[in-house]
Amino acid sequence: MTDLNSVKALTFDVFGTVVDWRSSVSAEVAAFLQRHNVDADAGMFTDRWRREGYAGGMRLVRDGTLPFQTADQLHRRMLDMLLEEHGITADDAEVAELNRAWHRLHPWIDSPGGLQRLKSRFVVSTLSNGNVELLVNMAKFGSLPWDCVLSAELTGAFKPEPQCYQNAAKLLGCESREVMMVAAHQADLLAAAQTGMRTAFVPRPREAGPNFPADLTPDPSFDIIATDFHHLAAQLGC
Amino acid sequence: MTDLNSVKALTFDVFGTVVDWRSSVSAEVAAFLQRHNVDADAGMFTDRWRREGYAGGMRLVRDGTLPFQTADQLHRRMLDMLLEEHGITADDAEVAELNRAWHRLHPWIDSPGGLQRLKSRFVVSTLSNGNVELLVNMAKFGSLPWDCVLSAELTGAFKPEPQCYQNAAKLLGCESREVMMVAAHQADLLAAAQTGMRTAFVPRPREAGPNFPADLTPDPSFDIIATDFHHLAAQLGC
Repeated sequence: MTDLNSVKALTFDVFGTVVDWRSSVSAEVAAFLQRHNVDADAGMFTDRWRREGYAGGMRLVRDGTLPFQTADQLHRRMLDMLLEEHGITADDAEVAELNRAWHRLHPWIDSPGGLQRLKSRFVVSTLSNGNVELLVNMAKFGSLPWDCVLSAELTGAFKPEPQCYQNAAKLLGCESREVMMVAAHQADLLAAAQTGMRTAFVPRPREAGPNFPADLTPDPSFDIIATDFHHLAAQLGC
Repeated sequence: MTDLNSVKALTFDVFGTVVDWRSSVSAEVAAFLQRHNVDADAGMFTDRWRREGYAGGMRLVRDGTLPFQTADQLHRRMLDMLLEEHGITADDAEVAELNRAWHRLHPWIDSPGGLQRLKSRFVVSTLSNGNVELLVNMAKFGSLPWDCVLSAELTGAFKPEPQCYQNAAKLLGCESREVMMVAAHQADLLAAAQTGMRTAFVPRPREAGPNFPADLTPDPSFDIIATDFHHLAAQLGC
């Protein structure tokens, strides 16, 4: 196993790793659909919002079809499409408010306490494709005690582009090997490792709901595998 | 008086406004000088480090004499010059440790509690010429509960360049008029106001020590004048 004594900072993927986006957003979508008397499945609406709007939108940015934009903008673009598809007309303020559901995501039960514990020994920072405003609002909503809020927005490119990880290490004043990426997503960790970062895999099997089971067989290269943030803290001696 | 109900976020100057750099750094300088048997005034050493190294260094970056670099790098550049001038030879680890004295600055007595109070209603963020690493370490050292750590480093230009203020508002998802700059330095506030930000002047008369009395007569344009962060919180309804 790699020597982890040099690790000074932990950078966290956020959507899915720290917060439960699906149940949080589904609840707001369900209330919105009911208000507009639309009989549609809020979970499936949310899944498409996430998969086609956010993940799909980032792919369009990566291949140059769309210019770089924030997660908020990608979410709004897809939300407008979904509303049109469902024949829903709503005023801009109400749509903007629903779009901000992504700022109000409930943490997994272990996240606030686990981060507080890790923070006693390490710098704990976000490293998310979410934009800074979204991450700041989410931290206030969910009492996430970040030392620093870093985002792909600061580089104008989304993870897994290497500059996202490299820029985070630089801003934190660390060599890449002094930073550990923490994520529930293996591709994110593998890309971080490519830049020299350490890796901690924290699977969140319920992240994407019943229709999209997570890949829980960890790549053998990860430095740490933990069941939650307390387990991660224990393995890191906190 | 300007309507302040639209303010959503407060951005803080840090050195001098939130923390007492002079007494913190002087104490580390005094110990260093004593260790090296050098009879020199630690306060004056610190004043020159700050005035010629940091403020002077930023001027050299602004006029293009030096490339953009972090506050840590500007501090180290001046520290090396001061050590040579005083005939002090020290190994790199010891000099690097002294340079990090700027990461270990004690907050003014009202800063942690006042920020916590302001945080209940507003996003509270740094907006400092200090680099991100320095600000993150300082926050951990002094228990400063920032929601976000923003720095001139993110724009590659130092305050009072307008892009520093504009970029902060953008990252926080705010119009400039929704952001209030908080500083003990009038030039910082006047530059923020030029970009449309609101302003709060919190004079810190002891900041620069006995040799450099602060300019305490506030410009009449400031939206708020407060004696400390609790007084600021009270005026903002926290």
